[in-house]
Amino acid sequence: MIGRLLMVPLLAGIVTAAALPSPATAADAAAGKTKAKKCRNCHGIDGIAKIPIAPHIAGESAIYLQVQMKAFRSGKRTHEIMSVVAKDLSDEDIADLAAWYSSIKFKVEMPAE
Amino acid sequence: MIGRLLMVPLLAGIVTAAALPSPATAADAAAGKTKAKKCRNCHGIDGIAKIPIAPHIAGESAIYLQVQMKAFRSGKRTHEIMSVVAKDLSDEDIADLAAWYSSIKFKVEMPAE
Repeated sequence: MIGRLLMVPLLAGIVTAAALPSPATAADAAAGKTKAKKCRNCHGIDGIAKIPIAPHIAGESAIYLQVQMKAFRSGKRTHEIMSVVAKDLSDEDIADLAAWYSSIKFKVEMPAE
Repeated sequence: MIGRLLMVPLLAGIVTAAALPSPATAADAAAGKTKAKKCRNCHGIDGIAKIPIAPHIAGESAIYLQVQMKAFRSGKRTHEIMSVVAKDLSDEDIADLAAWYSSIKFKVEMPAE
């Protein structure tokens, strides 16, 4: 009976661990802002894209940003610029950059009907 | 001499045509807003993501959004949800959805130093 009661939270823990990247170790948004110099020509230091083919990344979740940077680094996602830039990023760089860009607040304004 | 003068704009035209997707034909933001019902659970009708693994897409450029939807549709970019959703999108759907989400205005507020 105890075994059965324990199983649900244990399984839930395994699913969570499998679905999400490992938590950012020592993510440092201030360091990320400095490291964002290599991102600024396309995404801006403020996360607002400077060119139409690049996305705005201000306020994206840290998880999303980390997953994408790691996908570019591993080759799962490809782009002529990002595949090159991401190759040189360490896990710490990725955590810091994600911490910086995710810390920027954004607001949207819906078009008039 | 005339040949030489003509060459620069002609080449510029070719480069532009090669670098950018063909212009959206009959992109209709209002139709896109209606079609965005299939996107809303993850990205919101307003382009603000409802789950951390999905990106906010409000205010992204129409070009960026079209390129990504087409990449998911062709298999160049993969994601367990988007690869399925994009498979059923026509070029017109993609143009309309991109027109809708790109029409939402996006402002950022930088974190205090």
